[in-house]
Amino acid sequence: MRCEVVAIGTELLLGQIVDTNSSWIGEQLALAGIDSHFQTKVGDNLDRIVSSIRLALDRSDAVIVCGGLGPTQDDITRDALAQIMGVPLVRDEEVIEKIRAMFEGRGRVMAANNLQQADVPEGATVIDQVGTAPGLICPVGDKVVYAVPGVPSEMEVMVARDIIPDLKRRSGEEAVIVSRVVRTWGIAESTLAEVVGPRLEAMADGGRVTYAFLASGWEGIKVRLTAKAHTVDEATALIEAEDAEIRALLGTLVFGVDDDTMESAVGALLEERGLSVAVAESMTGGMVASRVVDAPGSSDWFRGGVVAYESEVKFDVLGVRRGPVVSAECAEQMADGVRRVLRSDVGLSVTGVAGPAEQEGQPVGTVFLGIALGESTESIELHLGGGSRIRIRQFATISLLDQLRHRLLGLPPVPN
Amino acid sequence: MRCEVVAIGTELLLGQIVDTNSSWIGEQLALAGIDSHFQTKVGDNLDRIVSSIRLALDRSDAVIVCGGLGPTQDDITRDALAQIMGVPLVRDEEVIEKIRAMFEGRGRVMAANNLQQADVPEGATVIDQVGTAPGLICPVGDKVVYAVPGVPSEMEVMVARDIIPDLKRRSGEEAVIVSRVVRTWGIAESTLAEVVGPRLEAMADGGRVTYAFLASGWEGIKVRLTAKAHTVDEATALIEAEDAEIRALLGTLVFGVDDDTMESAVGALLEERGLSVAVAESMTGGMVASRVVDAPGSSDWFRGGVVAYESEVKFDVLGVRRGPVVSAECAEQMADGVRRVLRSDVGLSVTGVAGPAEQEGQPVGTVFLGIALGESTESIELHLGGGSRIRIRQFATISLLDQLRHRLLGLPPVPN
Repeated sequence: MRCEVVAIGTELLLGQIVDTNSSWIGEQLALAGIDSHFQTKVGDNLDRIVSSIRLALDRSDAVIVCGGLGPTQDDITRDALAQIMGVPLVRDEEVIEKIRAMFEGRGRVMAANNLQQADVPEGATVIDQVGTAPGLICPVGDKVVYAVPGVPSEMEVMVARDIIPDLKRRSGEEAVIVSRVVRTWGIAESTLAEVVGPRLEAMADGGRVTYAFLASGWEGIKVRLTAKAHTVDEATALIEAEDAEIRALLGTLVFGVDDDTMESAVGALLEERGLSVAVAESMTGGMVASRVVDAPGSSDWFRGGVVAYESEVKFDVLGVRRGPVVSAECAEQMADGVRRVLRSDVGLSVTGVAGPAEQEGQPVGTVFLGIALGESTESIELHLGGGSRIRIRQFATISLLDQLRHRLLGLPPVPN
Repeated sequence: MRCEVVAIGTELLLGQIVDTNSSWIGEQLALAGIDSHFQTKVGDNLDRIVSSIRLALDRSDAVIVCGGLGPTQDDITRDALAQIMGVPLVRDEEVIEKIRAMFEGRGRVMAANNLQQADVPEGATVIDQVGTAPGLICPVGDKVVYAVPGVPSEMEVMVARDIIPDLKRRSGEEAVIVSRVVRTWGIAESTLAEVVGPRLEAMADGGRVTYAFLASGWEGIKVRLTAKAHTVDEATALIEAEDAEIRALLGTLVFGVDDDTMESAVGALLEERGLSVAVAESMTGGMVASRVVDAPGSSDWFRGGVVAYESEVKFDVLGVRRGPVVSAECAEQMADGVRRVLRSDVGLSVTGVAGPAEQEGQPVGTVFLGIALGESTESIELHLGGGSRIRIRQFATISLLDQLRHRLLGLPPVPN
């Protein structure tokens, strides 16, 4: 089974946006055991869209077309598909009603333009919409063209929910692929490759689990394990065994798997130990709090925070003693202060220099983290120079949460 | 003059890395006035690489091939080019010496593998290397194929320094392209298309400025204007005139151009009016503060904030009266409270229900914004239902900043 991807949009060719959709789809196809040999980008031009899709259909069994399903006049994927199928477009009343209901749910009126989003090539099947645009399944002889919107969140739902299962059914693929992403923080990609290297060599013959490393900025290095087997149980057992091997090598550098995030890992530990947390932020300016709030169930353990961007706010609101604010002392007093003012069990803090200029004689990238927990308040000094302002803020944010995670791992859970 | 891009590498198809190179090259071509109608990704397979490049040469006058020039066995772009040109590969001694010198300069010894990087199809011209891989200019009939390494920093130098000038010389293109992105917030893409529609129709014949719309989530809808002319001055004048037309249609829905952001637009107004700001956040959990801190120079006007996630923090720290927290009254008292506690000129607030469950009988997506400015404190009620938790938080964040922007536009700047 071969499936190509055709991404549509002049803005992709002009480099106004990067085509991350095709990459994401390529990954899903690979995980489903479906080959993908070509990916094409083409602009909003009917003839060229038609010729690109026809070429892809010649070379492969299926094509996923991404983009050009919106409500504006340059959204012409529907027309291209009707031309390829040799059928007219038919307006689907049921789709119109769904679009209208979606607008009404948001307290808005549907524009006349949106009606064209309900045009469906005769003989095509509608994929239930996520936003305003429905997807399409278009049979062409014994092959198939899928169309999905270019909005990543809508595209991802349709590909995972409808298209991959349909492709698998068509391909009759019996092998099962199970994958797991092991999430790490605090190790460089080259070091990680060295640590895991002997394990990879030991598996070189006959190993049925493959490794892929993906450096992901402030999300850490992701290690993707993929196992192919006859049954889900068998593939899952292979993954479980390999996960245990990695943890033996990496220890607490592993903070979770798959959709776990640093904040969800920290949240689970806080909940287990029955502790609430509050955070005082200078340089990160609310980024730590905002990440924490992303964790499911954060309202059970997150009280809130103080963004003490201006020094006076540190002194006035958090009771920090006047003095240098890029310092261990300031970080410790901020952590104590926010714990006291917000009445939490744990107080966190971050202060430092995100740039562009140095501050108090400290170079860009100098960061002090504070943790007030139980009887002790401590600070950690980091040097995160050599990056942009936002990168320094991001790395300080994740480092603070990771430091808290390590402190919590040293504490016993609350007995039930 | 038409030029396509072919990006080579199985890792691109598998989604292990995103193909940002093609986007970057596409932008350079557009700015140089060279059309690019297709971009293709293909894996490390000789036959498929050859057929992709041949197809691109059929459709266009020139092709830029990116990747597959490294020292490993899956780097086969050189072989593909020799096959397309119908010539043998010849090892270039001068290139070998440059690679050797490069390794020695880094205190390393050149590996035998690197020798293949000096293989050049007979009749091709070498593009001086930036890393270890030289680029290639390969004539094919009266057309041309350029090959550059996949390492972005090396690719970018060669494209800008050698390839774009060579393409311009071949095309005899004298035109200059200038583009500008007009940033809007508060209007749906379909409505925007309707409002601007008559203008687009009026320009349909003979207009020298083209429009493109790009829905960008909480960054709003971007409208890209592109003008082609004989000189930069002429193209810029066209853009200026069109920008004025759009603003006449959209008014204050336009908040900036190009790299302007909602927070930089708000920051510029605050600075002009000599006002400082502080923010109290419940549901957004620090997201407003974190966006604001992204604005250049924010330390001149941003004092900080209180993340009052837990209700007790609203009552204790901000002095909100006990009662329902998803309410206009609460939003107003939070805005007043944070202005008082952090001693700022303007107090902002946001409280509401991001989900997953309703709260105080209010449905997910119910949001109250508060603005304390001068003598008055007001609240605004929003209904942002129908999206994920993070989308609701993001839209509440930008809506709050946009509401402040509109209030500030009604205030006079501080006289110098």
